[in-house]
Amino acid sequence: MPDNDYKWTTGITKVQPNNLVTRGYRQADLIGNVPYAHTVFLLLKGRLPSKNEGRMMDAILTSSVDHGITPPSARATRTVASGGVPLPTAVAAGIMSVGDAHGGAIEKGALFLQEGVHRAKAEGKSIDEMAIILVRESREQKKRIHGFGHRVHTADPRTTKLYTLADELEIAGDHVALSKAIAEALLSETGKNLPVNVDGAIAAIISDMEFDHRLGKAFFLMGRVAGLVAQAYEEMSREKPMRRMYDPDHDYDGPEEGDLPEEYR
Amino acid sequence: MPDNDYKWTTGITKVQPNNLVTRGYRQADLIGNVPYAHTVFLLLKGRLPSKNEGRMMDAILTSSVDHGITPPSARATRTVASGGVPLPTAVAAGIMSVGDAHGGAIEKGALFLQEGVHRAKAEGKSIDEMAIILVRESREQKKRIHGFGHRVHTADPRTTKLYTLADELEIAGDHVALSKAIAEALLSETGKNLPVNVDGAIAAIISDMEFDHRLGKAFFLMGRVAGLVAQAYEEMSREKPMRRMYDPDHDYDGPEEGDLPEEYR
Amino acid sequence: MPDNDYKWTTGITKVQPNNLVTRGYRQADLIGNVPYAHTVFLLLKGRLPSKNEGRMMDAILTSSVDHGITPPSARATRTVASGGVPLPTAVAAGIMSVGDAHGGAIEKGALFLQEGVHRAKAEGKSIDEMAIILVRESREQKKRIHGFGHRVHTADPRTTKLYTLADELEIAGDHVALSKAIAEALLSETGKNLPVNVDGAIAAIISDMEFDHRLGKAFFLMGRVAGLVAQAYEEMSREKPMRRMYDPDHDYDGPEEGDLPEEYR
Amino acid sequence: MPDNDYKWTTGITKVQPNNLVTRGYRQADLIGNVPYAHTVFLLLKGRLPSKNEGRMMDAILTSSVDHGITPPSARATRTVASGGVPLPTAVAAGIMSVGDAHGGAIEKGALFLQEGVHRAKAEGKSIDEMAIILVRESREQKKRIHGFGHRVHTADPRTTKLYTLADELEIAGDHVALSKAIAEALLSETGKNLPVNVDGAIAAIISDMEFDHRLGKAFFLMGRVAGLVAQAYEEMSREKPMRRMYDPDHDYDGPEEGDLPEEYR
Repeated sequence: MPDNDYKWTTGITKVQPNNLVTRGYRQADLIGNVPYAHTVFLLLKGRLPSKNEGRMMDAILTSSVDHGITPPSARATRTVASGGVPLPTAVAAGIMSVGDAHGGAIEKGALFLQEGVHRAKAEGKSIDEMAIILVRESREQKKRIHGFGHRVHTADPRTTKLYTLADELEIAGDHVALSKAIAEALLSETGKNLPVNVDGAIAAIISDMEFDHRLGKAFFLMGRVAGLVAQAYEEMSREKPMRRMYDPDHDYDGPEEGDLPEEYR
Repeated sequence: MPDNDYKWTTGITKVQPNNLVTRGYRQADLIGNVPYAHTVFLLLKGRLPSKNEGRMMDAILTSSVDHGITPPSARATRTVASGGVPLPTAVAAGIMSVGDAHGGAIEKGALFLQEGVHRAKAEGKSIDEMAIILVRESREQKKRIHGFGHRVHTADPRTTKLYTLADELEIAGDHVALSKAIAEALLSETGKNLPVNVDGAIAAIISDMEFDHRLGKAFFLMGRVAGLVAQAYEEMSREKPMRRMYDPDHDYDGPEEGDLPEEYR
Repeated sequence: MPDNDYKWTTGITKVQPNNLVTRGYRQADLIGNVPYAHTVFLLLKGRLPSKNEGRMMDAILTSSVDHGITPPSARATRTVASGGVPLPTAVAAGIMSVGDAHGGAIEKGALFLQEGVHRAKAEGKSIDEMAIILVRESREQKKRIHGFGHRVHTADPRTTKLYTLADELEIAGDHVALSKAIAEALLSETGKNLPVNVDGAIAAIISDMEFDHRLGKAFFLMGRVAGLVAQAYEEMSREKPMRRMYDPDHDYDGPEEGDLPEEYR
Repeated sequence: MPDNDYKWTTGITKVQPNNLVTRGYRQADLIGNVPYAHTVFLLLKGRLPSKNEGRMMDAILTSSVDHGITPPSARATRTVASGGVPLPTAVAAGIMSVGDAHGGAIEKGALFLQEGVHRAKAEGKSIDEMAIILVRESREQKKRIHGFGHRVHTADPRTTKLYTLADELEIAGDHVALSKAIAEALLSETGKNLPVNVDGAIAAIISDMEFDHRLGKAFFLMGRVAGLVAQAYEEMSREKPMRRMYDPDHDYDGPEEGDLPEEYR
């Protein structure tokens, strides 16, 4: 029991003079011996990964690393950077934009797949059968299944590569299978080609790695942080502060200009 | 020339349907083949690292990964998380606290070392001579040299390990040498034991790797982001929202309680 | 129709050379003639307030202005400020902590009260009858009703004042009445004294002013921003960067220190 | 002396059960009696304003309230909002963009004017003489004087109104005079018409009100927060999450697409 009500307890890092122990391992041992992506796994799972799990984690981080200036996160980082602020403030703005609509499909997709696999087992259904059930239910309830389709990519090269690796590293299991089956069911049931996108692929793989779906957005932001640093640095080193970034042309549809009412004059 | 004044130009990632090219390499090739830390190097430098540079970058990221609940970044992340916000918002708060006083010694230290090495060459001085000159000047100007001494660690295990690696990987050069010489000069000139701390070690190593000092805080935050995710997740999964985190006992030294002046009543 | 797909439309402010028109009024007319709190009302509602509505809005902003160093927002702002960052970055960290658990009772409380009043009308119940129904249902479903009870204040002086004003200004209506009736029902049904807190009072009043409940947290943060500026400024002007802010004493309950497994050495 | 090393001291708000005392006044007294802008003055200065000081503060807040979708703060808020995050997170992103290049002219301008007035007195120069000296020195040193000129407004209506009020309220003093004299000197010495902009006007007025220049950005952000709330709310209520906000057309000038080097395959 803590000595007082406000004493904190943490299981992440023990700090002692000249020794830092993270999840049971000395940082002096981790540095240079355990690859960064494996250390990330250690931090989130509380144990070191197998070699294959570590390689998979590394691939996940790399798959989120940058998508140019197109997504809100890069735009937010560069826009805030243009205000003349320190690099970490600009990067933080990009991270803050990771929300339900941007990177959020990992969290929602993982929950959906985890519940789907659970239900298949509980109801004695095959993965393919469950995929068709889920797609039909979603259509009836007019709900979107997260992690499928992309506004730019019809065959997202990141998904293909992540799934190839997940097979090679023997990580792919029921959740990856279900995500593929859902893409097929979407096509057969609705006629729409909505392949698994990179968020959906990460959702499936971290589910097969038994991660909590609530960490979904974290995988995205841990990889993307490097891209956001590059975006902020490019803005700060190649552009002027407060450059004219955006076409000022827009429509105003508020009330017409008028005088203040009598009582305010 | 751009077609309009507001067209952006970026050298980071080319986005095409079904193809993402980052600094000249297809992301589908990077994923699973190039370790994440090497990809970070690619993003920041614009070229792939040598094997040794990649291993050094990996070690730098790991050396910043977490310092328990003691620094402002972890406190900020957990405090904001306790308000009941999404994980990325909490992590962003931690990243925003990376400033001149927290992680800032990397940036300032790198600039100081880069200027010192430049000056040694320009003035025909040895690294050891320059270290003594810099320490004496700093004493006279009552300026602090950034990257030396730590409030907890007298022999920071992370520095030791990073410097051992920098030697083994043949990365250590004039900047690492200067940082070591400054620590010795601080002892001989002032009698104070102020060894190179982890910020100072990173400052020296990234300088020997020819990184812009303005990226200093970025190395820290790219490593620390994983620790902040772990801190936010621990707060969200083990603690109640708005828990009593801090001893409310404090002193108030503002004006004594009184009535509003006549005109406001 | 916009000329291109990416053209924005806004109803807030029209920007012309030497003229700014906000919600139909020239800013040059608003400045100095329309009190700031009235202008806030104008921004959110799209029309100028009546004199009474303006005074009520002013009181709401003041009621959120500061709660010392006790809440997460003030702690986050001061913690981030201690990292050595610009004042706006520190203030932003405090604002980010405004979430479901901190200030969130305004949003949730407003929705609850608005649904309650709607239902009372639909079901032909009196406000007092509806209050008892809602309290009983919440008990059965083991759900908390937001906006009642406070960890420090048993009779929040801000609530008392806001409700007195809401009566005087003839703003108090069904939602204020329902909030009072719920507090009474909580006492009679559960024996617990959980009076309306300041969040609950704001929730009720903005509901009687016909604001969207989704703006709930905005009222809190627009008032609190001034307190957060004061907190950041006090930290920056009276304290040293990276001061020892928090008792480092804590418990570590992670794995015991051990060696890396064979394969990583 | 505090009982322990980590005890905080604040002069802002004393928190007691059922009583909150801010800068010496009970919040229950402030609410409804002291206008919000006057309470902001109280928070920052530690005393209530005179009637005229309070009115001036109110006008300053209103003068910063919104500038449509053109500045980085509004863009950042709406871009982050489009990621699907809570309203306070989006508003915080806008506040974070307030930096040296966006709102920063208030802080820099106030420091410049305060030093100028101080120097005029020390050197026995008139305000007009000092203006010419400062403009000439800035030209020689090729330094920009902050707070003059605007990319949209040649005669900023906010400046005109603020300066009229500052005269009427008998607040305008040496700093306002110096700012006007500098604008004239810029025209006579350089031939450029660079009138005082709204940032410059606020800088001059808060200097005549004897505010610390380090609070410069705070005046801007405290007024703008209401506009940012309106921007976030408009985005959330009128637009779809992740809408196509920006023309994706841009140039990529990074390295051409190529294969990974041998060692990575």
